[in-house]
Amino acid sequence: MALRVYDLAGAEPERRFSPYCWRTKLALKHKGLEFDTIPWRFSDKDVIAFSGQGRVPVMLDGDRVLSDSWNIATYLEDTYSDRPSLFRGDGGRAVTRFVNAWADSILVPNIVRMTVTDIFAHLDQRDRPYFRESREKRFGMPLEKVITTRDADLLSFRKVLEPMRVLLATQPFLSGERPAYADYIAFGCFQWARCISTLPLLLKEDPIWTWRDRLLLAFEGYAGKAVGYPV
Amino acid sequence: MALRVYDLAGAEPERRFSPYCWRTKLALKHKGLEFDTIPWRFSDKDVIAFSGQGRVPVMLDGDRVLSDSWNIATYLEDTYSDRPSLFRGDGGRAVTRFVNAWADSILVPNIVRMTVTDIFAHLDQRDRPYFRESREKRFGMPLEKVITTRDADLLSFRKVLEPMRVLLATQPFLSGERPAYADYIAFGCFQWARCISTLPLLLKEDPIWTWRDRLLLAFEGYAGKAVGYPV
Repeated sequence: MALRVYDLAGAEPERRFSPYCWRTKLALKHKGLEFDTIPWRFSDKDVIAFSGQGRVPVMLDGDRVLSDSWNIATYLEDTYSDRPSLFRGDGGRAVTRFVNAWADSILVPNIVRMTVTDIFAHLDQRDRPYFRESREKRFGMPLEKVITTRDADLLSFRKVLEPMRVLLATQPFLSGERPAYADYIAFGCFQWARCISTLPLLLKEDPIWTWRDRLLLAFEGYAGKAVGYPV
Repeated sequence: MALRVYDLAGAEPERRFSPYCWRTKLALKHKGLEFDTIPWRFSDKDVIAFSGQGRVPVMLDGDRVLSDSWNIATYLEDTYSDRPSLFRGDGGRAVTRFVNAWADSILVPNIVRMTVTDIFAHLDQRDRPYFRESREKRFGMPLEKVITTRDADLLSFRKVLEPMRVLLATQPFLSGERPAYADYIAFGCFQWARCISTLPLLLKEDPIWTWRDRLLLAFEGYAGKAVGYPV
């Protein structure tokens, strides 16, 4: 039986924008595993209550229930160890977790600050009150005010990407010659933005644009064909 | 014959502050290799001209000449493959290079901005004109002006360390359960500052302080005993 992933969706069921769900979906593609996705909204907490927590991705593998994208990645690596490796060794696993921490603490907050109203605009009506309230509490201001510094924030964002740029001058993927989980972690953040916003996070002349293009085309264009904007 | 490393020194020959040389020295310690260091100053370009470039670390292994800390690390890993691994696998090597890029593009410029006058104050008299001229050209202002924003820069610096903090909440070292090259890369930056400045880069309650402490004590306190300041 195919694996199943509860995947955050917008008002349109096929608009799947969660950066964490993208990590999981690309990890599954990397492993060559068949999987179905189930559109899920923030309001559907009860639907995933069986997982013991309230966030997606949630993955079902037979009767195994998993949550948290990092936890899912290590589960896939250990359970499907005969398939292409997500980490290529113990050192890779340990240090990829630094990339995970970097993406979570640098990329995610920077992107959400610039796109929070775009996310809101794509949400199902049922999700909007929850999203507005929780994010306005987090930012301490209305969503519409958060994005007023977007132009300056975009310039800062492109600067914090410098480590990727330096690395990609020496190797085509964060994980080396071929993409692996470190790439899917970072890519998931760009893909998230691409699914809900027309904001040009990257310039075409940026080596990170080229890297992202390679990943949009990977797995027969799985991410590239997803509902989103061509930015 | 022991390996030899040309190691940046201040006015006092035993004040060895280069972050890149620290990476190399700790990589050698990790491999359990005997080595001698040779104090080197910026003015000694001719002394390392045989390496085909003008920066340290330069390492001699018999008649092999190596430069660039990343290049030296991969050489040590491949040449002394029967000794403890710096990367623990191909994935570790590839993704550790991301940590290298992060340290070079985020940690180094942030630290130099806060400590450039401290570096200057510890240099040999011969090195001072070169250092002042090259760094003032880079910053576009006198060294003494660069550090006027130090208090604010320190707060920003502690924020850009957040990925380390997030990671160290889940594992004791960047490289996992035991330190390896990813740790030495980041540690070298803190050790650099510690060798020339009394600026408290880290607060005692920061998990990064605890991590740094573990590395100061590693290899019989090799880095901890180095000439520097107890900050």
